[in-house]
Amino acid sequence: MNYIPKSVEKWGVFEISCSGRTDGNPFTDYNIRGHFTNGAESVETDGFYDGDGIYKVRFMPSFEGEYQFSVTGTFSEEPIRGSFMVTPPSPDNHGPVRSANQFHFSYEDGSPYYPLGTTCYVWELQNDERIAETLDMLKESGFNKLRFCLFPKHYNYNLGEPRSYPYEGTPMNSSVLTEENWSDYTENAPGNHWDFTRFHPAHFQHIERCIAALGEIGVEADLIVMHPYDRWGFSCMTPEQDELYWKYVVARFAAYRNVWWSLANEYDLLRHKSLADWERYAKILCQKDPYHHLRSIHNCGPHYDHTRPWITHCSIQRQDLYKTAELTDEWRIRYQKPVVLDEIAYEGNLPFGWGNITGEEMIRRFWEAAMRGGYPGHGETYLTPERILWWSHGGKLKGESWKRIAFLSRILYQTPGIGLAPAKGNWDDVCAVPEDALRAAQTGYRIYYYSFMRPCFREFYFDDTAKYQVEVIDTWNMTIENQGVFQGKFQINLPGRQFMAIRLQKAAMEAS
Amino acid sequence: MNYIPKSVEKWGVFEISCSGRTDGNPFTDYNIRGHFTNGAESVETDGFYDGDGIYKVRFMPSFEGEYQFSVTGTFSEEPIRGSFMVTPPSPDNHGPVRSANQFHFSYEDGSPYYPLGTTCYVWELQNDERIAETLDMLKESGFNKLRFCLFPKHYNYNLGEPRSYPYEGTPMNSSVLTEENWSDYTENAPGNHWDFTRFHPAHFQHIERCIAALGEIGVEADLIVMHPYDRWGFSCMTPEQDELYWKYVVARFAAYRNVWWSLANEYDLLRHKSLADWERYAKILCQKDPYHHLRSIHNCGPHYDHTRPWITHCSIQRQDLYKTAELTDEWRIRYQKPVVLDEIAYEGNLPFGWGNITGEEMIRRFWEAAMRGGYPGHGETYLTPERILWWSHGGKLKGESWKRIAFLSRILYQTPGIGLAPAKGNWDDVCAVPEDALRAAQTGYRIYYYSFMRPCFREFYFDDTAKYQVEVIDTWNMTIENQGVFQGKFQINLPGRQFMAIRLQKAAMEAS
Repeated sequence: MNYIPKSVEKWGVFEISCSGRTDGNPFTDYNIRGHFTNGAESVETDGFYDGDGIYKVRFMPSFEGEYQFSVTGTFSEEPIRGSFMVTPPSPDNHGPVRSANQFHFSYEDGSPYYPLGTTCYVWELQNDERIAETLDMLKESGFNKLRFCLFPKHYNYNLGEPRSYPYEGTPMNSSVLTEENWSDYTENAPGNHWDFTRFHPAHFQHIERCIAALGEIGVEADLIVMHPYDRWGFSCMTPEQDELYWKYVVARFAAYRNVWWSLANEYDLLRHKSLADWERYAKILCQKDPYHHLRSIHNCGPHYDHTRPWITHCSIQRQDLYKTAELTDEWRIRYQKPVVLDEIAYEGNLPFGWGNITGEEMIRRFWEAAMRGGYPGHGETYLTPERILWWSHGGKLKGESWKRIAFLSRILYQTPGIGLAPAKGNWDDVCAVPEDALRAAQTGYRIYYYSFMRPCFREFYFDDTAKYQVEVIDTWNMTIENQGVFQGKFQINLPGRQFMAIRLQKAAMEAS
Repeated sequence: MNYIPKSVEKWGVFEISCSGRTDGNPFTDYNIRGHFTNGAESVETDGFYDGDGIYKVRFMPSFEGEYQFSVTGTFSEEPIRGSFMVTPPSPDNHGPVRSANQFHFSYEDGSPYYPLGTTCYVWELQNDERIAETLDMLKESGFNKLRFCLFPKHYNYNLGEPRSYPYEGTPMNSSVLTEENWSDYTENAPGNHWDFTRFHPAHFQHIERCIAALGEIGVEADLIVMHPYDRWGFSCMTPEQDELYWKYVVARFAAYRNVWWSLANEYDLLRHKSLADWERYAKILCQKDPYHHLRSIHNCGPHYDHTRPWITHCSIQRQDLYKTAELTDEWRIRYQKPVVLDEIAYEGNLPFGWGNITGEEMIRRFWEAAMRGGYPGHGETYLTPERILWWSHGGKLKGESWKRIAFLSRILYQTPGIGLAPAKGNWDDVCAVPEDALRAAQTGYRIYYYSFMRPCFREFYFDDTAKYQVEVIDTWNMTIENQGVFQGKFQINLPGRQFMAIRLQKAAMEAS
């Protein structure tokens, strides 16, 4: 039984399902490849075994109109050929996110995309009720990117069994674990029995449903393919096992337009992996992902060399207890790529310094990064009696910072052109202007952010003739107050509170 | 008419007044020197002309018992000789402050001194009522050091005339000054007419009364001898005029035990002075101050080379909008001297980033510095309709940070031995232990400060046998809660608020 859809929308998932051989180990003994073309675009892509005798090949078309396809491989005796129609994208489908204007992003259809993400490491491995809660919460919030892991996670406050495992086999008995002893059971702890040549398709099918569900609410899925918080041995497989895993992951997920590849969370904590391993994974990704989704790798201590050509954007964890978002402009200069801050401490009350800042401090870091032309990331780690932490499980947000994300997002989307750039302001403010120098000059658009400082007024002088529309922004209370139009030297009063900003842009010209 | 007291207390000001020649210019045409000895201590010191035909020589004795003296010089035809008794110091007189234990301070009698200072640049040049108000406020607060200028100050929010000038002559007409144009009138602005060879003794007599008044309430007078906020030309005198000034200042003030010498505020902004000039002033100080009062020099941009042997302690202004107090331990390592942070931004609401942080941020910076074994300084810059700013004029403190200084001071004075040192704690706390390694080991005394972080608990383990008395300190709300005695591995709960600390020390041994 083969299943071949008649049509798919542009940037949708076109999926061919076919029956195939089940003797031996279908995950390793047979292959399946698809070829898709409309004349202009021609894609060769690996398929995968999905269990129960079903093989699948997926394709994400980038053009509308008729495509031809063929599916070949040792999985079956005869190839499958045919054609299908690609229809226009539905209104909320803007295609995959690409890096744009050097330091920024946009959707493939050219509409702007300003990533303001959050982290729920294993939200998708919780029960259905919690997953639904997380999706509802994401919808209510302003987040448009979510970082999460494909492998289950073993870490403080997250010792339970995941809903499923990626491999056939049985895990160690987790009933021995306590919040005191869990760190004695790391990497391949005794008691695991896995067949690393046989995936558990249900695990991946579920993750695909989660990726699709995120896509439906406009959230990019920043997939953490490897990570060190392990008790099952998934962080210390052999190179052959790793390769099988990477290829399976890419074959399954690459056709989802909202996928980003994060090679690792805290790559430097995976002590069995070397730089050569990461470069090898990157090579697999570059070869096997026909759509060139965004690729990054996230650090704990030292940064990865983000100048590596396969890296599309920096994914950076804080480097200093006190300063991180404030270094965004330095990292832009160093790496010459978009700077995404995928961990600048989390709002919460954990005993650890990475998880106990205030909502105010979180939002301050967001603005510090955003006004320097970078993209800050959120997380929340409130330890309550229920022990459901957003950062790990998803669920409900309890803090104060998430409520202010949509407000910042709205302001970012008002930027003329694509993206903000840090500009020379005064020594005691952060000045942002449009990245596009021509647009910056034409519009005079600029935002001054005052962080924890509390000026009761600020003075401005650009020239004698230009008229500026001025707004006072309260980034915490989420208000924008129009101050009117000013010219020459002028003073703007402020309320003497923290977290204020002033936005200026040239007033609309009168008709000549 | 000569006036020679019969006795003085140890570390008091012994002052000999004598009539002398008044023809010509007594400030420059004649000299007067005193010689004081008790056999062990022998001091040669310059006197000065105090106006109205009176010459004075001052001496601060360091020993009790009988001293002999002689006063000689061209001011008079015949020398004066005699003797006097030095009585024991009064209870609150502990002598001058000295650097101690490499990174710290103590009074000369060995009692501890932890400097927690504030800045009122020209408090002493205000009217009597304001001066009294400032002294009352200082008494109410926990400050024990005050930085202020000997020359009047010309700067934002401080454009009025001082109560007196250091020289004979007339100043420029200040009625032309406004908050908009004041910075056009800098250094030697047109309209000043001074005789830089003739001091105005009343100016200095008044400052002496202020120094003495500070001494009476236990406040060290950190005298800023030169500064750049000038419209009268005092910042750009000739080398000869400077030398006359420095010698006059030292001759007048050195005998006051609570004097510290700050060669300059923001030395690098005095654009007519070179490094050679500062070294020359330092040489005058070293030669002419027989009591070797503390000597420092304060920067705006680059630090002075605080390793210079004449510098007794670093006097450092913040180097970064975000981090300053947090660098205290690095500066201890670099300079190997006490680190005093004589400007880490001020609590207030000014339009300038140096003067508009919150009380919470100010106190956070205080603890960050103090827990690293350094000494933070305060200032307050609230712009209100009366335009009386503590930082410039003194008056009344309006903010929140000053109220928490006495609390920190009390904790510092509880340190075993002299001074705290930064210790290796965890990556996300600041750990302070006694500077004295033996005392640190014996007492197990340590403070962990959590800054803006909000751990809901912290865990500790030192060894299995020692018992620790544990207290939770709320540095903002100024509470110390005894948690009891703990042993082995233990957990201390915290309220999940910012600005908390935990203090531990070995519990008193039971009698064996």
